[in-house]
Amino acid sequence: SGRSRRALSTAADYSHAVFAPLDTFADRHIGPDAGETAKMLERLGYDSMDAFVDDTVPKHIRVAATTVSNDSIPPLTESELLVRAKELAAQNKVFRTYIGMGYHTAVVPPVILRNVLENPAWYTPYTPYQPEIAQGRLESLVNFQTMVMSLTAMDIANASLLDEATAAAEAMVMSYAVSGSKKRTFVVDRGVAPQTLAVLRTRAKGFGLNLVVADVATYELTPDVSGVLVQYPDINGQVTDYTALADKIHANGSLLSVATDLLALTMLKPPGEWGADIVLGNSARFGVPAAYGGPHAAFFACTNTLKRKMPGRLIGLSKDTMGQPAYRLALQTREQHIRREKATSNICTAQALLANMAAMYAVYHGPTGLRAIAGKVHAFAQIVKDAVESAGLTVANPAFFDTLTVAAPGGASAIHERAASLGINLRRIDNDHVGLTLDESVSLSDVTDLLAVFTGKEVSASSLSPPSQTSIPSSLRRSSEFLPHPVFNTHHSETEMMRYIFHLASKDLGLVHAMIPLGSCTMKLNSTSSMIPLTWPEFSNIHPFAPTEQAAGYARVVKELSEDLCKITGFYAASLQPNSGAAGEYAGLCVIKAYHESRGEGHRDVCLIPVSAHGTNPASAIMAGMKVVSVKTMGDGSLDVSDLRAKAEQYKDKLAAFMITYPSTFGVFEDGVTEACKIIHENGGQVYLDGANLNAQVGVTNPATCGGDVCHLNLHKTFAIPHGGGGPGVGPICVAEHLAPFLPSHPLVATGGDNAIEAVSAAPFGSASILLISWAYVKMLGGRGLSDSSKTALLNANYMAERLRGHYTLRYKNSKNRVAHELLIDLAEFDKLAGLKVTDFAKRLQDFGFHPPTCSWPISTCMLIEPTESESLEELDRFCDAMIKIREEADAIIAGKQPKDNNVLKNAPHPIAAITLPDSEWNRPYTREQAVFPLPFLRQRKFWPTVARIDDAYGDINLVCECPSVEEVASN
Amino acid sequence: SGRSRRALSTAADYSHAVFAPLDTFADRHIGPDAGETAKMLERLGYDSMDAFVDDTVPKHIRVAATTVSNDSIPPLTESELLVRAKELAAQNKVFRTYIGMGYHTAVVPPVILRNVLENPAWYTPYTPYQPEIAQGRLESLVNFQTMVMSLTAMDIANASLLDEATAAAEAMVMSYAVSGSKKRTFVVDRGVAPQTLAVLRTRAKGFGLNLVVADVATYELTPDVSGVLVQYPDINGQVTDYTALADKIHANGSLLSVATDLLALTMLKPPGEWGADIVLGNSARFGVPAAYGGPHAAFFACTNTLKRKMPGRLIGLSKDTMGQPAYRLALQTREQHIRREKATSNICTAQALLANMAAMYAVYHGPTGLRAIAGKVHAFAQIVKDAVESAGLTVANPAFFDTLTVAAPGGASAIHERAASLGINLRRIDNDHVGLTLDESVSLSDVTDLLAVFTGKEVSASSLSPPSQTSIPSSLRRSSEFLPHPVFNTHHSETEMMRYIFHLASKDLGLVHAMIPLGSCTMKLNSTSSMIPLTWPEFSNIHPFAPTEQAAGYARVVKELSEDLCKITGFYAASLQPNSGAAGEYAGLCVIKAYHESRGEGHRDVCLIPVSAHGTNPASAIMAGMKVVSVKTMGDGSLDVSDLRAKAEQYKDKLAAFMITYPSTFGVFEDGVTEACKIIHENGGQVYLDGANLNAQVGVTNPATCGGDVCHLNLHKTFAIPHGGGGPGVGPICVAEHLAPFLPSHPLVATGGDNAIEAVSAAPFGSASILLISWAYVKMLGGRGLSDSSKTALLNANYMAERLRGHYTLRYKNSKNRVAHELLIDLAEFDKLAGLKVTDFAKRLQDFGFHPPTCSWPISTCMLIEPTESESLEELDRFCDAMIKIREEADAIIAGKQPKDNNVLKNAPHPIAAITLPDSEWNRPYTREQAVFPLPFLRQRKFWPTVARIDDAYGDINLVCECPSVEEVASN
Ligand SMILES: Cc1ncc(COP(=O)(O)O)c(C=O)c1O
Ligand SMILES: Cc1ncc(COP(=O)(O)O)c(C=O)c1O
Ligand SMILES: O=C([O-])O
Repeated sequence: SGRSRRALSTAADYSHAVFAPLDTFADRHIGPDAGETAKMLERLGYDSMDAFVDDTVPKHIRVAATTVSNDSIPPLTESELLVRAKELAAQNKVFRTYIGMGYHTAVVPPVILRNVLENPAWYTPYTPYQPEIAQGRLESLVNFQTMVMSLTAMDIANASLLDEATAAAEAMVMSYAVSGSKKRTFVVDRGVAPQTLAVLRTRAKGFGLNLVVADVATYELTPDVSGVLVQYPDINGQVTDYTALADKIHANGSLLSVATDLLALTMLKPPGEWGADIVLGNSARFGVPAAYGGPHAAFFACTNTLKRKMPGRLIGLSKDTMGQPAYRLALQTREQHIRREKATSNICTAQALLANMAAMYAVYHGPTGLRAIAGKVHAFAQIVKDAVESAGLTVANPAFFDTLTVAAPGGASAIHERAASLGINLRRIDNDHVGLTLDESVSLSDVTDLLAVFTGKEVSASSLSPPSQTSIPSSLRRSSEFLPHPVFNTHHSETEMMRYIFHLASKDLGLVHAMIPLGSCTMKLNSTSSMIPLTWPEFSNIHPFAPTEQAAGYARVVKELSEDLCKITGFYAASLQPNSGAAGEYAGLCVIKAYHESRGEGHRDVCLIPVSAHGTNPASAIMAGMKVVSVKTMGDGSLDVSDLRAKAEQYKDKLAAFMITYPSTFGVFEDGVTEACKIIHENGGQVYLDGANLNAQVGVTNPATCGGDVCHLNLHKTFAIPHGGGGPGVGPICVAEHLAPFLPSHPLVATGGDNAIEAVSAAPFGSASILLISWAYVKMLGGRGLSDSSKTALLNANYMAERLRGHYTLRYKNSKNRVAHELLIDLAEFDKLAGLKVTDFAKRLQDFGFHPPTCSWPISTCMLIEPTESESLEELDRFCDAMIKIREEADAIIAGKQPKDNNVLKNAPHPIAAITLPDSEWNRPYTREQAVFPLPFLRQRKFWPTVARIDDAYGDINLVCECPSVEEVASN
Repeated sequence: SGRSRRALSTAADYSHAVFAPLDTFADRHIGPDAGETAKMLERLGYDSMDAFVDDTVPKHIRVAATTVSNDSIPPLTESELLVRAKELAAQNKVFRTYIGMGYHTAVVPPVILRNVLENPAWYTPYTPYQPEIAQGRLESLVNFQTMVMSLTAMDIANASLLDEATAAAEAMVMSYAVSGSKKRTFVVDRGVAPQTLAVLRTRAKGFGLNLVVADVATYELTPDVSGVLVQYPDINGQVTDYTALADKIHANGSLLSVATDLLALTMLKPPGEWGADIVLGNSARFGVPAAYGGPHAAFFACTNTLKRKMPGRLIGLSKDTMGQPAYRLALQTREQHIRREKATSNICTAQALLANMAAMYAVYHGPTGLRAIAGKVHAFAQIVKDAVESAGLTVANPAFFDTLTVAAPGGASAIHERAASLGINLRRIDNDHVGLTLDESVSLSDVTDLLAVFTGKEVSASSLSPPSQTSIPSSLRRSSEFLPHPVFNTHHSETEMMRYIFHLASKDLGLVHAMIPLGSCTMKLNSTSSMIPLTWPEFSNIHPFAPTEQAAGYARVVKELSEDLCKITGFYAASLQPNSGAAGEYAGLCVIKAYHESRGEGHRDVCLIPVSAHGTNPASAIMAGMKVVSVKTMGDGSLDVSDLRAKAEQYKDKLAAFMITYPSTFGVFEDGVTEACKIIHENGGQVYLDGANLNAQVGVTNPATCGGDVCHLNLHKTFAIPHGGGGPGVGPICVAEHLAPFLPSHPLVATGGDNAIEAVSAAPFGSASILLISWAYVKMLGGRGLSDSSKTALLNANYMAERLRGHYTLRYKNSKNRVAHELLIDLAEFDKLAGLKVTDFAKRLQDFGFHPPTCSWPISTCMLIEPTESESLEELDRFCDAMIKIREEADAIIAGKQPKDNNVLKNAPHPIAAITLPDSEWNRPYTREQAVFPLPFLRQRKFWPTVARIDDAYGDINLVCECPSVEEVASN
């Protein structure tokens, strides 16, 4: 048609400006325009961007302008990108798919699709570290936890993990940890999914665990067994009664972990009722598209006894200073400050957005709706079973929920051929068996198609009747109620659901409101153009294990994005499998480990890590089987190169790797990076570069030039995947040529190097669908726009440093007085003079309608501020004005004009509930106006915290992680 | 592919419940579930819905249950609907289209597409009658007005009209009105678009005007000429200097109206600089898809002298009681209470949502961006012209902006064939001329394709160079600046734009927040499923005058929707052309008029209208050339049938029509309706049924059974098209068989009856793309769901009447104590006792987070409350609780506990600015908490008015309809 004939004209060279397309993305993505950029440069004393960058980034690591240019990465306009995305979409083939194995065709309620997944108010916020401006998604995540607890019948559940396979790996390591790191054997039933098994093998290797795959029915437990993992229903669909097994496991002093399916649990006796200690799985079939493997939220639940060893984020109830209930991240110390030496998990970014979608799905359907869905899925499976058996085939799994393993001796390929001719995918098992899994999307006509495929005869719908029996044994049927909480029994009309979604969103500060200058998080624009293709059915409805020829569009995205990331990092090959930055660190270190092993140097296991590193670094090193040795930092914030040299030489024979974040977490490009890398290489080690700060580098330097061998990138930072309120994320790794053979494989889909480590994620390309966002981001900016973005990010940070000068202490800068793309300000003096903590400044910033910067990391008395290139000069100024005003307010407290324990900072934030207090209770030495409108712009535009400051300790002592019950709601 | 094989299984009969699909729309659309419905029925004393409906709707007008049933309209599930919509989308063919004639391929900025057009916060609100909770879209509409004023260089502009053709008709009638209704000749230049001309002819007929089509260059003005309309650039692309013409027209005491194009005005001298009195046009190319004709916003601007005669809604600045600037509908009396006898316009619902999109487009691009777009469009046109002329063809219009008329003697069809083979549409003029219009979407490769089409030779892009000249004569080039206002020069990054869109949305109460119980407005759910197909390119990018074989999908939607509406209304045929309810009234009355004429009874011109009718009714009657005679109402609210009989007999020989709203605007099904219709028919008249209240009827009665001959439906009420903050709307008419021949035609696309009246809208199927919404609504509910919806709407209203009983005076009910789908409560007593007006109650409701019901209409002391079926019992109760609490507050005032001039009602609403006043200024005899949290639920969930009560009179005296200038912003 006519539409597709226009299109990729940008590939042409526009000899004349008037020929060039107008909807150029860089102009929209980058906040400051040419005039503002000139103004900022002037304020900093430069007459060109180049001069500024020369002072900011060390000369010896600069790359040529041609490296990342419009020649190497030609830009597409926004319209062109959408045309190109349509072309790739058309290369995917959407079959009716019954492959199962943990992935289903989800029916996404449109009200959730559009108002959550496609709504920037939901997808742009960060992890709710500032709970007073995040009560909406905190409530929704508590719904998620409650949904998991109630369906699994477990005591407590976290707010998501990356996928079922890594959740299983967490269960394994937690079992080991619970044994006091003594019992090194972990038993996995042979009914567990192959992708789970692959990830378990990778993880077991790092921890030096002994992984046994066995038939648990007959396996003899030994004292060394820390835990056992079963799948319920198992990979072939069989539902087994594990009650006796649970008793046996407990008698052996071991833990029982169960991988399960939430929809099945509406009909099956839940694991919590028959002795499970840990229950985990994938929540995607609750309204989250399969999307070629992800993203979606895994869940993880356990018993009360184990709760303090549970990995991942946990949302809990607490109260605010006004005594009102309020949610926040519970037991926080477990996470941000992951214990360096004894870490068992590195989970940081999780899957908040997808957990929220799944929770909303449960809110929308409620227990009755879920039961109806499950009932239909099961009835259809029963009909297929009965018909298949009447046709003379047998079903190998007598007790099932939605999955059948059909025995067709010698006949599997004929069945697959008939299926393919009808556009149907079934699970390929072997020549004699065919698998199929039914789901919510299956209609009656799909069932007749399936019967035609299996029986070779047309079957009319009218000949079918509902099954007269269920093959779920009565001992395994669920009798307990689930989801009785009001929230799951209220919002069942679209109107009510829409209002609930908007009501929660109204409590959360996202990029739709103001800048979120969280250092080390790169909260840049998540453009609409890059989000649009994501929810097209051609991308949403592809099963990760579908025949690869059905996923040619995805293959192209994977290839192009990998190549572009290699151009940007200077590396040779990439793996897009890791689902988060931390997962990337782990994958990269495993690759390094495999490299050493391939050279007969498997004993190399020391990993040097600067003390300033992000907590995930040492945790990942330990998970990859390394020992962490810390490297000191100098008084000026830079790496102590002589300490590094000393340690490298000391551990010369055992040196495996050095992990470095660049620019450093202190926000400075250090000169010493190449020298440091040289030292490591000379001592037999490999250099791992944490690419969380890559936004400072694109087109001006790169990890390869800095001396690295491998890096991960947070696509959810530099490459514009939205943070979704705490995930999804993607943490691909890029590696030098010598490491490429070791890139991770997958048990079901060919990917990775010739000498690959096993999988690190359940799906071959991790969170495949959101790769589209980064692909679009790179393609639309093109080389020039990408480097301009990084340069502007540097400029924005330096402009802020300049504006805050004299008001706040900038902790570190380089010899030319320049910071990198973020700045670290030290607030220690305020504590000394007036007892004002970093938190007081942060909470006061909320009153100005801003999300505070990263607090107390990497230095406890500091704030780390990262503006990104997407913020305009006006917004930077607005934020700096707020900071300067707070400085004045602090001065007044220091000067004794307000008491140290009752002032605008200590009492911040001020929700509307506070300012409506009667005069008799107001009791504060400042007016309501001073509290909430400290600067004039706030009268026009202000985001309101919905609760007062939250008491963290109270909530941790009285841990409540479930949403209110009928009784609690009634008593309010 | 596999996906499309599932699908329309609902067509099958589900003999077993477990086979039925689960995502049934009725369950989501209707608010109360079975339990709630039973509870409400019980409260009203019924044991079944049927018994309740029997008491509510007169027996003699009931229709059989089979009329609207799942047999007559089978339901599709939400998933099935989307599959079906995709099938229809695939039947449309998207060609590259250069037909022009006022319609272009728009480039919709994705940030606007997703966050305005696809965002319920923008599309669900109503017309901003309650400005304190509508400051967001009011500001945006002022941006629209400012954009029009600045680009046209006119003094004042309104906030949109329905389309360019009806805007031209308004200009014609306004010219006539300005002449004191004396000068009956209106001259239209032959360069005006044919669809405009058709609509002008229809309208001229009604007003008895003499429409002359002429070449204005040579036409001799006579004293009878009230005005002249020219198009600039004209339909063939020519740009003419009309300065001398303007002088001549003014010397003749006539007005000059100019139809123009906003993009062209960035380069062309604007009409306001060369003497235009009225300027109008279509703003769609500012980022609103062509969408087979609409919806989009027409604009209308005039000189200061004429402003009080300007049709349509006007937004103006005023101030609130705290002295803060605030926007609201200005000169409101012109609209809601359209003068019955002397109306010249019936415009009510306009195109607010599309006006907002166009305004946002201007905000995003700013003057520089707009100039760049226009510059490129013009340069490409110049290149085509030069190349076409080099190839030996001539261009008939020497001065142009974007449109060329190419003379190709005898060669037009060869050119069209070459074009079609490349998937290109050009304008078909005649055998010797081909037209083409370029737009923003055109790329360089499109230009080379066009050159190939015209020259028959391949042309390479590299052979092209920018034009060295412009064919716009220097005297016609724009030299004045435009859009200098800060708002058009600030939000140019996507981040800034997104924040601006969300910031404005945060000020507006929509269905995403709470019920909007506006009587006579039917603010029901606008479901996501029904909105999704709307923005698919296969529907967005179809030109209304494209060859019909490219619009087969649309044709199917038109056919199916027409048929279903006929089933629902009991009529024979439908026209989907009218763009609003009022436009439907006008069209229906014109059809009646044509029918009388066809029978030699053209003299019939009396239209009987009850005094309680909506203001649009008499206005439409006058526009259709009728004389309005009022019919009285009885003390019990019902039509005075004896007065009707008397009038009908009195005007027997001249009786043309009777217009009746059913159920009446008083919210009751009157028994007398059939009797009334009989009287009219006996006296030679036709019955026009205003279907605004059709939501009370579906499946229980229908207009045909009530005795009507024609009705209009507000698809934006009963059939779930969102109100968009004041439009779009669709007002199709359905007619009995004898009227079908007269349904409106269109000059360019075959539609309408054999004996058709001329067009009433510019596009053949009016606002075609949003027909999809009503189509989806009907298809998803199916017959059963449709009647259940109406029954529930009746139940919800009666439940509210019951709950408010004893607290408020219900003005009318039927003999069984039942109201229809809305209820009218009378607040007169409060005025008497304590000076409390309807407005005070309305503004106080805002403090409870609710949108007030319709106020002071159809009776000045009343509120008309319409809940719709989409509201749940919980929401109804919440609203009733609020009303009852306000009643208590009023009692306290009556009892003297709060002063009559300083109390919670008189001071309402209370924005945050009020409650943050220092204690010294609070000065109110109630606490802040009483002001803003009068009921406990408000602490959890409250929508805040952003300004205090607005002073309407102040704004009307000091009329300001433009957004703040640089100086004004600076001085704030
Ligand atoms: C420096 C650094 N490294 C690693 C990570 C971990 O990334 P993720 O949260 O995606 O696991 C972060 C996250 O903020 C980080 O800042
Ligand atoms: C009874 C009645 N008739 C006609 C109309 C006019 O419809 P529209 O606003 O679509 O022109 C309305 C609008 O509310 C109405 O209530
Ligand atoms: O617009 C209305 O008159 O309702």
